[in-house]
Amino acid sequence: MLKNIAIIGSGSWATALVKIFSESGMYISWLVRSKEQADFICLNKHNPRYLSYAELDLDFIRPTDSAEEAILHAQLIIFAIPSTYLNYILQSIDKEWLHNKAVAVSIKGIIPSSGSTPGLYLRKYFNLKEPVLVIAGPCHAEEIAMKRNTYLTIAGEDPVWVNKIADCLSVPYIRAVTNTDPVGVEYVSILKNIIGIATGTASGLHYGENFQAVLVSNAMREVDKFLSCVQANRSLYDSVYFGDLLVTAYSCFSRNRTLGKLIGRGIHVNQALLAMEMVAEGYNASKELAPIIDDLKITLPVINSVHRILHQHANPFHEFKLLEQQLY
Amino acid sequence: MLKNIAIIGSGSWATALVKIFSESGMYISWLVRSKEQADFICLNKHNPRYLSYAELDLDFIRPTDSAEEAILHAQLIIFAIPSTYLNYILQSIDKEWLHNKAVAVSIKGIIPSSGSTPGLYLRKYFNLKEPVLVIAGPCHAEEIAMKRNTYLTIAGEDPVWVNKIADCLSVPYIRAVTNTDPVGVEYVSILKNIIGIATGTASGLHYGENFQAVLVSNAMREVDKFLSCVQANRSLYDSVYFGDLLVTAYSCFSRNRTLGKLIGRGIHVNQALLAMEMVAEGYNASKELAPIIDDLKITLPVINSVHRILHQHANPFHEFKLLEQQLY
Repeated sequence: MLKNIAIIGSGSWATALVKIFSESGMYISWLVRSKEQADFICLNKHNPRYLSYAELDLDFIRPTDSAEEAILHAQLIIFAIPSTYLNYILQSIDKEWLHNKAVAVSIKGIIPSSGSTPGLYLRKYFNLKEPVLVIAGPCHAEEIAMKRNTYLTIAGEDPVWVNKIADCLSVPYIRAVTNTDPVGVEYVSILKNIIGIATGTASGLHYGENFQAVLVSNAMREVDKFLSCVQANRSLYDSVYFGDLLVTAYSCFSRNRTLGKLIGRGIHVNQALLAMEMVAEGYNASKELAPIIDDLKITLPVINSVHRILHQHANPFHEFKLLEQQLY
Repeated sequence: MLKNIAIIGSGSWATALVKIFSESGMYISWLVRSKEQADFICLNKHNPRYLSYAELDLDFIRPTDSAEEAILHAQLIIFAIPSTYLNYILQSIDKEWLHNKAVAVSIKGIIPSSGSTPGLYLRKYFNLKEPVLVIAGPCHAEEIAMKRNTYLTIAGEDPVWVNKIADCLSVPYIRAVTNTDPVGVEYVSILKNIIGIATGTASGLHYGENFQAVLVSNAMREVDKFLSCVQANRSLYDSVYFGDLLVTAYSCFSRNRTLGKLIGRGIHVNQALLAMEMVAEGYNASKELAPIIDDLKITLPVINSVHRILHQHANPFHEFKLLEQQLY
């Protein structure tokens, strides 16, 4: 029986996970950034910086700034931090602490300089016998906070753990979906952020709804093409693949879409990054994914255009004029 | 060389086609509803009722209320009217007039009581040797009027005519895409309107972006399933399939989405239909498609839910609660 979970990270998505699992009756030990943040949460029952309007039930949640304390009694450790911070956090975790515990990731990015998804990276890092589980959307943290109906996917190769997590989710606004393709799920969650930057850029450049739809349907083709190369085919219509992609591509909450919109409006990439309060995972994902796409020798017009705009100083207006010719 | 085109219909989509083809240098004979409407257009250079802000170039456009006059000198006849009016219009057309002319449809629906797509229906009705061509989006008429970049698909089994039409399109904001699957294109344009009603209903019921995305990705699975039954598989990522579906599912311009939204907000179906200025094709399509889906013995949860709400008095709130359990 799953009772004790550690959640590593205190951004908006980690906060949403804390909320979902604690409302399902799990005991959460929650690793946050500092003692001040832990004390604030204990006093005020909400995260000071992210998703601050979500009330948290402290009967089930114990915030701490000690990784050891967070992990000690947990059966399952969920990493939910930006991919660029993973290596920093790992410095404070002794590999021994994870002995006989299950590990899950809910991180959307490639670990810098590794060419590896977070799940594959952590399995190797901790030398785990079992593959890492993946927890994915389609979920905006903001909509979770508002208790709006949505779906949460638990992906993993071990059906026992997948079902154990899915079964423990009992909040009425969440429907748990199980999935046996954690690597595919991780890759789509990376690709969709890059696609979100593309749709945001199109919107910033004042393209209309017709073009946006063509952009997204062509981007779906690219996701299919990429996944066919890295692993066997799966049905991409499941919510965790195209559902999650559509949330990011169309949402007003999406950080990646917002970043794209700023860039489309003519703000320089560096300035746009500075203007963002939160990490837009697609920015780094685009950089880390480029060599992988090169190695696969495939052409992904939308994904490649975003890379040229973000990392090779391409002019967004001209880049999209060229992209128009490649969509159909 | 294609020079003379007849366009049958004066709704917003027909008006958009008149604009696109006339700006490409074609001569358009345009069958409108009445002499008054024809006179108004000649005097004011715009359609009085639909897309009235789009200026029309009368050097290339001749409006008329005579079907014979419209068709007489045309090489290509494009039908662009609501599916429910087709039989009415056909009463004024002598089958002989179409001898040796190409016929295209840009109609999104099943012809009532026929179980047939407009293209298949017209081919049989006029006893045409050649299959009918299909002109499809993703195109909102409103965005065409604003000259916003988009894609227009010419689908047909005869590559000569398909290319002839595609080649004559030379307005800078339209990119012509050719396609060899006219029947598949017609079916998707029918299904997407029903899906538009579903997303509108979800929005009216105050579901959020997460659920909408799950709804759309599951609906894409249903489109794939349906098309696999009626014809060989094709790549649904082309703009004319999923692109067009996404425009309707997400657009604020979509009549079908608007109809769904009213129903989701608790307005009775009949009242919602009355409140609509324009025909929401998905309403009739849902009715006409139901027996076809029954015959195929497939389960399409989203499409079937819309049918129960529109035509079997199902309560939208309860129907969507049941639907939630069937999505994944």
